[in-house]
Amino acid sequence: MQDTGRIKSTLDPEASAIVFDADLRRAVSDEVPFYAEIDRAQAIMLERVGLIGRKFAKQVFVELDRLQAEGFQSLAVSPALRGYYLAYEDHLRSVIGKKASNLHLGRSRNDINATVLKLRLRRPYQDMAGELLELLRVLCGLARTHLGTVFPLHTHRQAALPSTFAHHMVAFAGALSRDLDALLVVHPLLNRCCLGAGVGGGTTLPILPDLTARLLGFVTPPVNSIDGVASRDLVLRLLAGSAILGSNLSRIAETLLLWVGEAGLVGLPDELVGSSSAMPHKRNPFLLEHIQGKAGAVIGYFVAAITGMHNTPFTNCVAVGTEATRHIWPAIDSIIGSMRLIRLCFSRLTVAREAARLMLERSFVNAMEIATRLTVAGDLDFRSAHNEVGRWVTAATERGTSSVIAMLQTDRMSNPEVSLAPDNIARTARAGGGSAPEAVTAALDELEADIERSAALLRHLGDGWGRAQQELRSAIDSFD
Amino acid sequence: MQDTGRIKSTLDPEASAIVFDADLRRAVSDEVPFYAEIDRAQAIMLERVGLIGRKFAKQVFVELDRLQAEGFQSLAVSPALRGYYLAYEDHLRSVIGKKASNLHLGRSRNDINATVLKLRLRRPYQDMAGELLELLRVLCGLARTHLGTVFPLHTHRQAALPSTFAHHMVAFAGALSRDLDALLVVHPLLNRCCLGAGVGGGTTLPILPDLTARLLGFVTPPVNSIDGVASRDLVLRLLAGSAILGSNLSRIAETLLLWVGEAGLVGLPDELVGSSSAMPHKRNPFLLEHIQGKAGAVIGYFVAAITGMHNTPFTNCVAVGTEATRHIWPAIDSIIGSMRLIRLCFSRLTVAREAARLMLERSFVNAMEIATRLTVAGDLDFRSAHNEVGRWVTAATERGTSSVIAMLQTDRMSNPEVSLAPDNIARTARAGGGSAPEAVTAALDELEADIERSAALLRHLGDGWGRAQQELRSAIDSFD
Amino acid sequence: MQDTGRIKSTLDPEASAIVFDADLRRAVSDEVPFYAEIDRAQAIMLERVGLIGRKFAKQVFVELDRLQAEGFQSLAVSPALRGYYLAYEDHLRSVIGKKASNLHLGRSRNDINATVLKLRLRRPYQDMAGELLELLRVLCGLARTHLGTVFPLHTHRQAALPSTFAHHMVAFAGALSRDLDALLVVHPLLNRCCLGAGVGGGTTLPILPDLTARLLGFVTPPVNSIDGVASRDLVLRLLAGSAILGSNLSRIAETLLLWVGEAGLVGLPDELVGSSSAMPHKRNPFLLEHIQGKAGAVIGYFVAAITGMHNTPFTNCVAVGTEATRHIWPAIDSIIGSMRLIRLCFSRLTVAREAARLMLERSFVNAMEIATRLTVAGDLDFRSAHNEVGRWVTAATERGTSSVIAMLQTDRMSNPEVSLAPDNIARTARAGGGSAPEAVTAALDELEADIERSAALLRHLGDGWGRAQQELRSAIDSFD
Amino acid sequence: MQDTGRIKSTLDPEASAIVFDADLRRAVSDEVPFYAEIDRAQAIMLERVGLIGRKFAKQVFVELDRLQAEGFQSLAVSPALRGYYLAYEDHLRSVIGKKASNLHLGRSRNDINATVLKLRLRRPYQDMAGELLELLRVLCGLARTHLGTVFPLHTHRQAALPSTFAHHMVAFAGALSRDLDALLVVHPLLNRCCLGAGVGGGTTLPILPDLTARLLGFVTPPVNSIDGVASRDLVLRLLAGSAILGSNLSRIAETLLLWVGEAGLVGLPDELVGSSSAMPHKRNPFLLEHIQGKAGAVIGYFVAAITGMHNTPFTNCVAVGTEATRHIWPAIDSIIGSMRLIRLCFSRLTVAREAARLMLERSFVNAMEIATRLTVAGDLDFRSAHNEVGRWVTAATERGTSSVIAMLQTDRMSNPEVSLAPDNIARTARAGGGSAPEAVTAALDELEADIERSAALLRHLGDGWGRAQQELRSAIDSFD
Repeated sequence: MQDTGRIKSTLDPEASAIVFDADLRRAVSDEVPFYAEIDRAQAIMLERVGLIGRKFAKQVFVELDRLQAEGFQSLAVSPALRGYYLAYEDHLRSVIGKKASNLHLGRSRNDINATVLKLRLRRPYQDMAGELLELLRVLCGLARTHLGTVFPLHTHRQAALPSTFAHHMVAFAGALSRDLDALLVVHPLLNRCCLGAGVGGGTTLPILPDLTARLLGFVTPPVNSIDGVASRDLVLRLLAGSAILGSNLSRIAETLLLWVGEAGLVGLPDELVGSSSAMPHKRNPFLLEHIQGKAGAVIGYFVAAITGMHNTPFTNCVAVGTEATRHIWPAIDSIIGSMRLIRLCFSRLTVAREAARLMLERSFVNAMEIATRLTVAGDLDFRSAHNEVGRWVTAATERGTSSVIAMLQTDRMSNPEVSLAPDNIARTARAGGGSAPEAVTAALDELEADIERSAALLRHLGDGWGRAQQELRSAIDSFD
Repeated sequence: MQDTGRIKSTLDPEASAIVFDADLRRAVSDEVPFYAEIDRAQAIMLERVGLIGRKFAKQVFVELDRLQAEGFQSLAVSPALRGYYLAYEDHLRSVIGKKASNLHLGRSRNDINATVLKLRLRRPYQDMAGELLELLRVLCGLARTHLGTVFPLHTHRQAALPSTFAHHMVAFAGALSRDLDALLVVHPLLNRCCLGAGVGGGTTLPILPDLTARLLGFVTPPVNSIDGVASRDLVLRLLAGSAILGSNLSRIAETLLLWVGEAGLVGLPDELVGSSSAMPHKRNPFLLEHIQGKAGAVIGYFVAAITGMHNTPFTNCVAVGTEATRHIWPAIDSIIGSMRLIRLCFSRLTVAREAARLMLERSFVNAMEIATRLTVAGDLDFRSAHNEVGRWVTAATERGTSSVIAMLQTDRMSNPEVSLAPDNIARTARAGGGSAPEAVTAALDELEADIERSAALLRHLGDGWGRAQQELRSAIDSFD
Repeated sequence: MQDTGRIKSTLDPEASAIVFDADLRRAVSDEVPFYAEIDRAQAIMLERVGLIGRKFAKQVFVELDRLQAEGFQSLAVSPALRGYYLAYEDHLRSVIGKKASNLHLGRSRNDINATVLKLRLRRPYQDMAGELLELLRVLCGLARTHLGTVFPLHTHRQAALPSTFAHHMVAFAGALSRDLDALLVVHPLLNRCCLGAGVGGGTTLPILPDLTARLLGFVTPPVNSIDGVASRDLVLRLLAGSAILGSNLSRIAETLLLWVGEAGLVGLPDELVGSSSAMPHKRNPFLLEHIQGKAGAVIGYFVAAITGMHNTPFTNCVAVGTEATRHIWPAIDSIIGSMRLIRLCFSRLTVAREAARLMLERSFVNAMEIATRLTVAGDLDFRSAHNEVGRWVTAATERGTSSVIAMLQTDRMSNPEVSLAPDNIARTARAGGGSAPEAVTAALDELEADIERSAALLRHLGDGWGRAQQELRSAIDSFD
Repeated sequence: MQDTGRIKSTLDPEASAIVFDADLRRAVSDEVPFYAEIDRAQAIMLERVGLIGRKFAKQVFVELDRLQAEGFQSLAVSPALRGYYLAYEDHLRSVIGKKASNLHLGRSRNDINATVLKLRLRRPYQDMAGELLELLRVLCGLARTHLGTVFPLHTHRQAALPSTFAHHMVAFAGALSRDLDALLVVHPLLNRCCLGAGVGGGTTLPILPDLTARLLGFVTPPVNSIDGVASRDLVLRLLAGSAILGSNLSRIAETLLLWVGEAGLVGLPDELVGSSSAMPHKRNPFLLEHIQGKAGAVIGYFVAAITGMHNTPFTNCVAVGTEATRHIWPAIDSIIGSMRLIRLCFSRLTVAREAARLMLERSFVNAMEIATRLTVAGDLDFRSAHNEVGRWVTAATERGTSSVIAMLQTDRMSNPEVSLAPDNIARTARAGGGSAPEAVTAALDELEADIERSAALLRHLGDGWGRAQQELRSAIDSFD
């Protein structure tokens, strides 16, 4: 393998240390197990079409099982002179004979790499979607618990309106459920196999890409071989979806930071805050800052990947298949970490009802309701009422009082102290997706149904992948 | 409107010049027509629930029609002291009386802005998807025409395999059809109305958000008011989808640049190349560079938007609703320009069959097929065959010949000159989505069916929006 | 100009509408005046080396002055069939004869475009740096005023330590002064002329690039013609510097938002807050959100530009010189807007000393000082002291008191009520760049000296450009 | 350390696994050695001002030396319950007594972290700049060797003009030398110490930040403590500089890809190309694609870092100091890898002079020169000459000839076959930074002088850091 006939020497060691690792230690966990899985399916298929013999196929299965049983450790210290795949093939050739390279008939590293990416993505994809499902369930649970917990709604860092804690939870969950949809919508791409696309031209051999696809748990074989090896848009779509999910997480974390902040509307338990090494009084909600940093990083990984692909030819490219693609792994780690941390915070936070009540009382959050009531009562048009109430608020602020209900001199409003109280407004804002418990419950019912549909789809995906593994094993067993 | 009761002066002029325009000249085309449309629906709804009178509603309709007829020009030079909406309301109040501000009952600028965004997006969204459809059809048309046009497939800037021009067209179209899917999948978000979400807390008034939603062509009203005013993920999702589409366009343009380049595999007509002001001999395919630049810009717009939203509180935010959102418009222009230019190039390019044939003959593109045939014939295992053919290529190159078929001394292969000829390989690569005409046709059939489904969905969307406009008009007419 | 001899038709109109404007209306302000300025210098130089005649040069000057006097309006409606430059040349040829195209000897659009970029950047560059200088002066002025204004320093959204308002102002100014340095450090690149680089190969003609450079206010001529036309790293460096400046502005704006927020540590006047269209009580500090959005947008423009250049060949490229470069203009607008808004806020904010004092009193901000004093007094090691004070804070919080000084039972500390009072700590934190007025003054003195050095450099640059214009005019006048 | 007095439990294990590692294994190489170095300087300083005793300081030195000698392995398996620093302090307290925590007087983790970043950056910063220097020297060496090697200059993927190989090398080196300047210009920031800034408020203790700064090899102590702990713009500036360097590398790699491509203007040796696992004939220049992918990734790391900082308060932040900052390490690896690979390619490439000559002969690259000569001879104005030569090229192309000199019927040009030959043009293009050997030599002389100045600055930096280590060691030795 030093001399390929066309190229006399192996890669320069300085270059090799940059583009490959020195050996297969890392590849043994990231890549090689997928080569083995692919080779099992390939061997079954090649035997079926008569391109390899039954006995040889059996030898392949035995050696692959042996390797897997030992965690591919006998490969770990092999040098990767021409990359991981050829080192793996070299090993097979040395153990089960030169014919091992016949497994490469009708394929190439190009379609293998594109297929390995999808096989390797399955677990992190499930983890990511599963973590998001869990977060959504925590938020929905909190909403059910806090349907009646009156809580301020802020705009521009000021208390704006009375609302409820549940109302906020459903808002967060609603946005995040769109992120879950966006992750799940790419699943057909994850289920399209690339094996058989070869270098990018398919093959003249009578191979059965449908069969290898099915044995590997995919739903469809490659439809166009160039697209099959050239494209990694799956990675971009997952990164974009994760970046937007991260955008929502950063905003929700910011909202929590403001709640936990000086007004103390929400509290975090000791095991979720950090001490200061220097200041004895601090209880820092520092996990929320980690969430924001990790969520923002995903944007960078998306940019790294899409820039890495920019202006490359539409064919198999190292800049696309290797360099741009690598950013998906730290991105998924980052977004999972971010979701897990915020889920922990939500699971264990306490709502400071009294602080919330106090803030609502002192912030004129019923001002809009007053202007609205004055208008509906016919006393003033809305803009005039708005400005009138504005004057009252200014006057009250100057006098140091925190209510303007006393200013309300209308005989057309009965019991304004009750009807204009923040908690009453929060409980009766029914229209437009408002905070009234029945409105929040309706939204929540719909949302939970969506979430469970997503959960079912995710289970269905996992089941499909699991069943394929069993089918593959049965096919192998039938060789005995 | 100088003094709101709470705020005594209008915005500082230096600040105003930055955050608003000095007057409504631009707003008159971008924003105000949508305020008018929303007010029509709002007036019908408020009249139905008894919050405004029938006669007043009629006055509103008359003035809005008058304004629209003149292109809102009487508003154009109004100063925007507190933004466009309040300037528009001021105008209505001056013309049809103070009560005009009662149209604001149960809503705010927050839900209006979120709704205007979606109304304003409809046309560019249709244009973008429509342009992509047109490009897809051009590519599919070229594929049908060139099913048998043998053409080299490159990897790493070298001729790799025989393929066909159609095979490439279907590869491009396949990738771009996923981009179309990604644009269309967000349509339910575009069809969710925000009106009635108010400031973010909904309202205690018995308004009918379902009705205003329907009259404006939306499918659903706001389900959660906080989410309704806080979220602009629709913009992020469209930008991400466009950026990934741009990634594909940049790669396809690069492929065209390489084809048009020194080997001249493809030609562009005079009206699609540029002269040099200094060099008389140049015919520059400069539009392809514009495509790449415009396509890449969309990544920047996505980053501008998502960074603008990063770490903002999950509520109505200027940084989100105004600043981050503005990047969608130049992004859509950029991606439409990019698609239109590449569609022009594809519509009018000529395939240089002779140059393609020459390149295939001189590039050893049948080397893999030879190694494969040697293996299938049982002469050698694949890796040994690969290296043997590699040696032949090296020897041929050193001798200056461009074929290695003469080296093939096997009696198990009949007629190698024919079977190993590039055009034969291209025509018989059936498996794995290969270049064989029947394989390409099968892929094309599937693809065109997908595309037509997308076209139907797009028409369906447009029809829905059109029908709503008629319903709104009928409702208005019924006031006579 | 329809048929260039090599290309028979002009650009397809659909393509032309995308890559050029339909006419020169916009070019007349953005590009054409710089063509004219370059042609003045070019004509003087060509005449000096004998490539054009004195009389013809004179004609050129007369026509260019005439055009400039009318604001190039006679060019505005010309069609831009082959771009703006050739339309401009066409005009000159039609007015002063075909020979007008001889001005193009020894150059091309490539070096003209690279030169126009730098000429056009001068004003926005000065504006940007000037605006930053003005902001820095406002911050330094506030620092001088508030040396003794005690103010809380927050970490993780909680009051951490006593500090002063001046201490914060100098922190902001220190960071922003590094941004000013980063903008100014690129000035030599701005002062390197590209004229004479031609297409990228320089020229065999005996032109004098030194002379044209000097007449146009540049310091150096092109040193390598390929680099001269290929590179736009100046744009990337300015964008990166602006993006990092934007990062600082977004963080300073966030700090202001937190100060203006619920605790009201800082107040903004009526002309710098916004009303709500619906909520009468709101005084929204919305300009600070505009600042954040505009500041974040610059990151996107940087990404658009650098991605647009990615993987393009290192030579003159449309994707680089036209597409990637265009993002500098909205980026500069955005960052100037952002700086101007924050400068307005700083110029007119009021510091709520009483609110600051109250927060300091209630937040245990002297906890670290107490632990430090206990350690220095030898009572406990620092970690033990830290934990002991932590226990006191916990106990005090549970009891609802806001001071732990009463817990301090040591005879080694005299007058702890005074020495441990927040304002005393703020005034005596001298080391490590602390808040003590003398420390802040020292930092401020150094900073202001830096800022004035930058101001001098900026003036020097502008003077150089101004002097060149006079020299050019004198040279022209000498033709009479 | 379980209970800090203020916080009763340690961090939740699930959260801890995300934000810290489970133990100090990684920290032992990345962070802890810098804690030790800082503690040496801190102990010397605290002893000098009398805050710790001489004997205790000695104990500290002994234990730190012991730890360092064993590579801090006795710390490696410690749990990081409250982060790495407190685990390290715990160790010191357990070994040399509780007083070990007194080293924390007048400082905090905030200023330690900011200081560790700069200490840890020194080596990678030197490596990065050193690698760039080496690349520049290779390019300059190639330029000296190839001053007379005639080579085509392309624009828009077509041969445009005659040039030389040296001319290109100097263009690349010129651009990259600006990147080196941009990396070096941030060195003063790297040399500003943060120690003593404490939490962000400095300290009331009479510590000597100048002394600790000097002992650690810094030039200046913190001037403003808030800025000292809040800012990580150094990281952003290095990332931006690296991203722009990456932009240049991606373009130079693209240029090499085009040269290596079908025309074979440049060749790479066997140890720098890759085989195909399937296609025996391929010699893929795949390292150039790795270069492009790695160079593009840096843009993503920049975006990750700057977005992570966006909208965070201007004070010590986890999102800034920990999350955003972490992206510098893979970015530096990526850019060093990219530079090293391209340096290898340049060091070993061969220029295919014959292929270059053939291309120049067949591409009408003297067309501009002919039009210029016609104009200078007075036969035609430049635009007319340009179009006339354009017609000749068109005619020649149609006839299949590749020269238009025969069309030149002027008696005013002597010996056009010689003077218009591509190699003559390349050799005589002196003005505007052209390809004439004397012009290239002049540019190269200037460039090499710049590069050596940069090399001297880099050595000076390293010397300063080295000398400080000796001074620190001497100071420690003086305690014996």
